[in-house]
Amino acid sequence: MHTCTSCTDHASIRDLQFRLAGEKIPTIFDRRRTQSPFCQFGRKGTCCTLCPDGPCRIRPGAERGICGIDADGMVARNLLRLVNQGGAAYTHDFKHTLKTLRAVAEGQGPFRVADPGKLTRMAARLGLPAADGPAAAAALAAYLDQEFRKDVDQPLDLIRRLAPPSRVALWERLGILPGGYLFEGHEAAAKVMPNIDTDYQDLLLTALRLGLSAGFLGNIATTLVRDVVLGSPAPTSGQADVGVLDPAYVNIVAHGHVPWTASALAQVLEEPAVQAMARQAGAKGIRLLGSMCVGQELTQRPGTAAGLGGQLGNWISQEFWLSTGAVDLVMMDKNCSTPALPQMAERTGTRLVPVSGLVHLRGVEDRPDLHYEPARAEAQARQLAAMAVEAYRRRQGRPLTVPEYRSPYMAGFGLESLSAALGGSLLPLVEAIAGGQIQGVVGLVSCTNTRNGQDLMTNALIRELIRRDIPVLVAGCAASAAQVAGLAAPEAAVLAGPGLRGLAQRLGIPPVLSYGSCLDAGRIVLTVYALSELLGVDPSRLPVAAAAPEYYNNDALIDALLAVASGITTLVGPLPPVTGGPGVTSLLTTGLDDLLGARFLVEEQDPVRAADLLTAHLQSRRQALTSAR
Amino acid sequence: MHTCTSCTDHASIRDLQFRLAGEKIPTIFDRRRTQSPFCQFGRKGTCCTLCPDGPCRIRPGAERGICGIDADGMVARNLLRLVNQGGAAYTHDFKHTLKTLRAVAEGQGPFRVADPGKLTRMAARLGLPAADGPAAAAALAAYLDQEFRKDVDQPLDLIRRLAPPSRVALWERLGILPGGYLFEGHEAAAKVMPNIDTDYQDLLLTALRLGLSAGFLGNIATTLVRDVVLGSPAPTSGQADVGVLDPAYVNIVAHGHVPWTASALAQVLEEPAVQAMARQAGAKGIRLLGSMCVGQELTQRPGTAAGLGGQLGNWISQEFWLSTGAVDLVMMDKNCSTPALPQMAERTGTRLVPVSGLVHLRGVEDRPDLHYEPARAEAQARQLAAMAVEAYRRRQGRPLTVPEYRSPYMAGFGLESLSAALGGSLLPLVEAIAGGQIQGVVGLVSCTNTRNGQDLMTNALIRELIRRDIPVLVAGCAASAAQVAGLAAPEAAVLAGPGLRGLAQRLGIPPVLSYGSCLDAGRIVLTVYALSELLGVDPSRLPVAAAAPEYYNNDALIDALLAVASGITTLVGPLPPVTGGPGVTSLLTTGLDDLLGARFLVEEQDPVRAADLLTAHLQSRRQALTSAR
Repeated sequence: MHTCTSCTDHASIRDLQFRLAGEKIPTIFDRRRTQSPFCQFGRKGTCCTLCPDGPCRIRPGAERGICGIDADGMVARNLLRLVNQGGAAYTHDFKHTLKTLRAVAEGQGPFRVADPGKLTRMAARLGLPAADGPAAAAALAAYLDQEFRKDVDQPLDLIRRLAPPSRVALWERLGILPGGYLFEGHEAAAKVMPNIDTDYQDLLLTALRLGLSAGFLGNIATTLVRDVVLGSPAPTSGQADVGVLDPAYVNIVAHGHVPWTASALAQVLEEPAVQAMARQAGAKGIRLLGSMCVGQELTQRPGTAAGLGGQLGNWISQEFWLSTGAVDLVMMDKNCSTPALPQMAERTGTRLVPVSGLVHLRGVEDRPDLHYEPARAEAQARQLAAMAVEAYRRRQGRPLTVPEYRSPYMAGFGLESLSAALGGSLLPLVEAIAGGQIQGVVGLVSCTNTRNGQDLMTNALIRELIRRDIPVLVAGCAASAAQVAGLAAPEAAVLAGPGLRGLAQRLGIPPVLSYGSCLDAGRIVLTVYALSELLGVDPSRLPVAAAAPEYYNNDALIDALLAVASGITTLVGPLPPVTGGPGVTSLLTTGLDDLLGARFLVEEQDPVRAADLLTAHLQSRRQALTSAR
Repeated sequence: MHTCTSCTDHASIRDLQFRLAGEKIPTIFDRRRTQSPFCQFGRKGTCCTLCPDGPCRIRPGAERGICGIDADGMVARNLLRLVNQGGAAYTHDFKHTLKTLRAVAEGQGPFRVADPGKLTRMAARLGLPAADGPAAAAALAAYLDQEFRKDVDQPLDLIRRLAPPSRVALWERLGILPGGYLFEGHEAAAKVMPNIDTDYQDLLLTALRLGLSAGFLGNIATTLVRDVVLGSPAPTSGQADVGVLDPAYVNIVAHGHVPWTASALAQVLEEPAVQAMARQAGAKGIRLLGSMCVGQELTQRPGTAAGLGGQLGNWISQEFWLSTGAVDLVMMDKNCSTPALPQMAERTGTRLVPVSGLVHLRGVEDRPDLHYEPARAEAQARQLAAMAVEAYRRRQGRPLTVPEYRSPYMAGFGLESLSAALGGSLLPLVEAIAGGQIQGVVGLVSCTNTRNGQDLMTNALIRELIRRDIPVLVAGCAASAAQVAGLAAPEAAVLAGPGLRGLAQRLGIPPVLSYGSCLDAGRIVLTVYALSELLGVDPSRLPVAAAAPEYYNNDALIDALLAVASGITTLVGPLPPVTGGPGVTSLLTTGLDDLLGARFLVEEQDPVRAADLLTAHLQSRRQALTSAR
């Protein structure tokens, strides 16, 4: 075990890591050391393990795999395999969201239409017959189900209706206007078998199709339907970091990405009888805390934010808050429950409970009765609460170590709440850009990983951007990073340049706006589309950019592809496994600009250089737009 | 370039490889040398490239990946990713088969119901209303489409109706009775993202689900519908090996797996006007030749076998027959067109034409107008014929090198034709086993790869098995291997042990029965199910086994999973990338026996030991069954 001073941006995690190192308990940072150094073929994408002849590795003197594949084909195929997993994961969220919407239409389960206005607007935009409440929900569910099941030669109507017309025309021309994800993913999976599709250009175009199909179903539609059912985001306030854990309470952590069981649980915990049950066990009460994206889901909507005990942090923090011993039950709803959790939970006696049929970890009991089902969600939530109280009883007498760090934040931004904060329209934002008060807008969605240390690059880049008068819309684990670092609070305005500082202080909002979970990248894209509609220009001409400075999981690839396909130039870090393919690298970082008016920028270590790249892009767009007006 | 004496079982390929080496033209065997030695992490499955933190490699001192995943989780997840690609590929064939059946129902395109009896029997078995011709085809198409689209919680009715009841009950108990492949593959793709499903046991059960879903839709149903539309197999005879190429003809090679365009072309080439067009160009005529699985499709049905110019060999042969210069056009219908083909085709001037939207190779023009569409198939076939004649004109004067090797074979076996050969029922087979004349039956489906050399292990194992009085049902590239080696001809009976020799000679059939393409593994499984039904015992109690001694592509994993799930113990070689996971290895090679009554045997180099393993299994089953009767 080593103590590590540069593994994380957060003092709380550093403290806990020091303590665990002292107790000889390995964590993610130790496992990183044992895995280093890393295979450079894998890093560059030039290792292929698809058949028993290999693994083939592209290198001087071995420019082709045994089958004859070149470096670009190998790299692009490996990338498409990852993209397809990310698309499947996001559209699995879509599937469960659709199931919930159907239950809402049928009056089953704990959820109702929470934002009827949004439902009406959405139905109108999608050309659905005017209807109210359950009937409108049913019509929307039927429409989306049909879209999901469309074959690859049946372009999504959803895209035609939600995307800027200039983009739709472009996607059609490029042959990347996709069908539903079931068939798109199926076709892509067949393509990546050895000796079927070995042309990197077609493989990358296929990745863009998946980005659009999963982006519109899995991000955009999912976000919109969740807002309809759970309520649209509106400004909320909360506290972040491990210090939000109060050992005197029964503590349940909602960990993952999916808001359904967690939102049902939030409702149940409001009941006096449930709180009384916790007090009977000797606790002050029972609390729900958020972790990573499901925490963002809970905190962005006033309905669930009110009772939230706090937001713990992003995915790398999970072993550490678990190690405090103050958590009684972790409900794992879908992605990002690391297989390291059971070992730590065994030490602390914490109950780990998958609430999704996807989640399986060695040493964790699978409870199919607790896999989210809309009609059973309330009963499932009650059961989880009871299990947590039981775990709390067993916890008594065990040593606890909760560092006291916590930071305030404001969350709950989205197209509507941002417009509201600006006085009812996005125009003041446009004017502030035109007037040079701010330089443009960056949407920053990211995961965090261990390559540079948790959130170091993310938070340094955010600081650098706001210092340059560039507001940041932040989502996913990057939102947790910013919240824990205190960057997502109105008080952070003092860290911004004079233009952004003035704007933020005048409006009473942070310079870094929490835009939700990683799946809510769709929310950022919708904001860009709204700007495009407002100004009547294609998104690629707007002074906006995206950044994923610490991407990690495969669904982040969907966010990035959706952004670039939408005309939003996107900075990524660390270096994706594509550099072994010169054609792939050139297409992604240069060639895409000709096709899509947007491309990938890459900087994995230097936040100032990353900010320079983004700033240069925003300025070029700002100048062109200003001189054109 | 090296000349290689032990790279292949076939003298023709060896001759061509020597010649190419002399001309300093690299082939697959040279690329293998440049790629050697191979990374042992990849070979064992203990390298993970799913996230930018890695690649992580499991080794002493690094027993877990950075996220915490253990060796078994890593190995099983990598395996499931490959299985899902194979399942997608097979069910893509299903999708195009369904599209064709729909066209048949609508009277569109060149195909009609060729085996109405099979359609009627199939409809009855599936509980569809009695109907004739187009109406019956329409009802079957609608039923299968519905099955394909079933969600993971809607078990396939197809399975309940086609599989032995004892198996269905078992699969239900194990929770592996799957839904349709679109959703099964989708769910599996989501599971394999980092930090979702990291439990090797669930990952392997999921692989079995995919094996059953793709096995019943992509193999079994696809095989049956192809028989309905193209005719069921019946004994045919043909010639195999590169020597079937006659340079005096315009030569079109049907290369890949999918019979549709090739069968349409076979019809078109029967027209005198089309032959006249070739003669006008100076050729003796125009011929269709088969390569790998689509060749097996053409040769197993009398309708298409009659006009077939011959069967060239399996996938490793493709660069070599192309190098002869005597091929004018290669129609690439789906899998297994290696990215090495364009370089060779440039030398020879051969036209490479994808007839599937899946197939993309650098340097090969994509012609969407030639992607198979039932309604356009005849026109597409005419266009291909014209393109080939044009290529023939350009070929004149170029040097040709066609080795003269060719071997006779008999093909066209399946449940019905085998029963017919046995006198109308499988009972004589059962009696021959009971009486000890033959020891059991082995279904051998395989690809071939370069690890031990092309077909060396396959043909050595086949020889060893028939010597021991074990008839072999052979499919896929292993069928091509056996045909080229002369093992699939009635004359090969002399190589068999006395019992099998007598039986084969009495019936006038080979000891090695060509059972079709790799996808026709479903045909072998149906034969086993029929034996199970006949004897009233579960398939796991029958003296049958399966073997894939030279597996290569991901769809072979579906064959293997379908077989083992069906209770058929299966020998695989080379060693799959699972040996780095002790739990995975133990479950696959031992534990599955408790769950399924069947398991994987492994032997990658020694054909005698492989035959010993298979023989021991057959004997144990034969003895148990005989003593139970």
